[in-house]
Amino acid sequence: MKAMKRERNGGIWDFELGIAPASGGEDLILGLDGGTTSTVCICMPVFPFNDGSLPPDPPPVLARAIAGCSNHNSVGETAARETLEHVMAEALSKSGSTRSSVRAVCLAVSGVNHPTDQERILNWLREIFPNDVRCFVHNDAVAAMASGTMGKLHGCVLIAGTGTITYGYTEDGREARAAGAGPVLGDWGSGYGIAAMALTSVIRAYDGRGPQTKLTSSILQELKLSSPDELIGWTYADSSWARIAALVPVVVSCAEGGDEVANGILLDAVQELAESVKAVVSRLGLCGEDGKDTCPLVMVGGVLEANRKWDIGKEVINRVSKEFPGMHPIRPKVEPAVGAALLAWNFLKEES
Amino acid sequence: MKAMKRERNGGIWDFELGIAPASGGEDLILGLDGGTTSTVCICMPVFPFNDGSLPPDPPPVLARAIAGCSNHNSVGETAARETLEHVMAEALSKSGSTRSSVRAVCLAVSGVNHPTDQERILNWLREIFPNDVRCFVHNDAVAAMASGTMGKLHGCVLIAGTGTITYGYTEDGREARAAGAGPVLGDWGSGYGIAAMALTSVIRAYDGRGPQTKLTSSILQELKLSSPDELIGWTYADSSWARIAALVPVVVSCAEGGDEVANGILLDAVQELAESVKAVVSRLGLCGEDGKDTCPLVMVGGVLEANRKWDIGKEVINRVSKEFPGMHPIRPKVEPAVGAALLAWNFLKEES
Repeated sequence: MKAMKRERNGGIWDFELGIAPASGGEDLILGLDGGTTSTVCICMPVFPFNDGSLPPDPPPVLARAIAGCSNHNSVGETAARETLEHVMAEALSKSGSTRSSVRAVCLAVSGVNHPTDQERILNWLREIFPNDVRCFVHNDAVAAMASGTMGKLHGCVLIAGTGTITYGYTEDGREARAAGAGPVLGDWGSGYGIAAMALTSVIRAYDGRGPQTKLTSSILQELKLSSPDELIGWTYADSSWARIAALVPVVVSCAEGGDEVANGILLDAVQELAESVKAVVSRLGLCGEDGKDTCPLVMVGGVLEANRKWDIGKEVINRVSKEFPGMHPIRPKVEPAVGAALLAWNFLKEES
Repeated sequence: MKAMKRERNGGIWDFELGIAPASGGEDLILGLDGGTTSTVCICMPVFPFNDGSLPPDPPPVLARAIAGCSNHNSVGETAARETLEHVMAEALSKSGSTRSSVRAVCLAVSGVNHPTDQERILNWLREIFPNDVRCFVHNDAVAAMASGTMGKLHGCVLIAGTGTITYGYTEDGREARAAGAGPVLGDWGSGYGIAAMALTSVIRAYDGRGPQTKLTSSILQELKLSSPDELIGWTYADSSWARIAALVPVVVSCAEGGDEVANGILLDAVQELAESVKAVVSRLGLCGEDGKDTCPLVMVGGVLEANRKWDIGKEVINRVSKEFPGMHPIRPKVEPAVGAALLAWNFLKEES
């Protein structure tokens, strides 16, 4: 079976033949973060478990490989699998090791929403790795969460990039989510949502349904268009979410420049994002009955990056903290793939 | 040239060979309405022009033919042209006439937004018809307008089906539009907009961001789904606007049943549609300075049909009338293709 697979995939694992069987003395963990635009795999040593020990900060990364989209909903199952297998092989090859050194694999990929998705991917991982390798399959929010908590699955993670989603996890294994349903179903705090509202405001100002706004000249300039009329053709030509979400910095600049319409759009987005965190925290009781129990809030994604005067992430924290003063904001220092590997490390540690 | 064209299109006009040259004594007008889902062509006699005469009510229709989409943005130019030529040939053939009887053609097709679109289609019509045939090319809103005013291009037309757009025309030939920019650019009063808001409300109620609503059980039942979770897969599977807009009757039923969330969505849609009419009326000064000058407001499309207790169209009229009491609502009694033909009749009458 394994031989057949190796054959079918054009020698993905052939590099192992050049590595002496006993050379890879070090036990390894693979951590994968598969988003809609790219897939990252990192290779990490299984550093020792001391009593109550935390992982080293920063955690050592032996090798890193990057590939394209591995969301099976976007590219289909065959392509997704091939991408994941390739990126794992590349990371192992770069670290000079073979699959026989791997102790655990933690794969966090967007598009994994049901136990059936998990089971399918687990079965396929078991075809690739020896039987004693521990395999974990989650969606990509788990990797983002773990990247902020150094591998602990407890608290809330707010992701706001092109799309937005909030996940929450309790220490006893319950979880909840809010938003993440895509633009048709109203993810208005996302980068796409913010930019679509800005484009809408330009059209409204143009045809007399809304106030004038600096967004008009700024967006037209950014897109090299000469009239708001042309925005219709621009969106029809390619309405991919990421292309539209790329306008968020223009909206932030206009708001920083005092434009009321742009400011209103960002305030609405803050409200949306805060609602989605509060809904998850309430449902799981993450901050206890009085809202004061400490709970991490991991914040990731371009919309929440703290590099602007108008800081969307900070405003979200302010709103959430009013109701849940126990929420403790974290902007992760490591990437999600490292979070995924740390999660596997914590599992191994608990088992040992 | 014409012979070549006839050849290329597989004998579209061959039926003319079986009609005696002198048999078609009656002068004819062809009126076409080309939307995104279908194209209708009607064939109408050039009834006599009496001084100040109005067209007969109802206008006599000699033949009617129907075909698929003729929007060049959707199906490409070649397919759009072929559809239009076929549907005209079929209408003429059904009326037992040839192109030599045609006095005028008025073609109103969605997707005609620029003078260049008009010019391209006009050139091509001139290849098909004898030189003395008068040809008019407009977008489909013009046909809708004329269907309410029996061929006069003056006033305002609000179209709200899957999408929404408002057009206005002054008697001296100026025009303006509002909305019609598609869902990304915020056409929230459209059928798509109403249904997307309803789906969003279901997701919000489910993940704790919004109030509970009867929309949840009604929409799940309509779509034969068992959980709001499954709505995400449902929208990703096929997010065509018409498929989503088909949920409007469910929203109306819930509002009629007293559901506050559904009621709020319809009130928001009414507000959006009224704003778009008011913007056009203001810009063109259609109701004069005091808003009391009489001006037709033609209302078409599934969202505005007066067949429910919760009557969206009536509510829009109420809002618009507060500011512009001169607006005179009209629900057309003839179809848009007849409106297009009447428009051509009015041109011929003015020329005569």
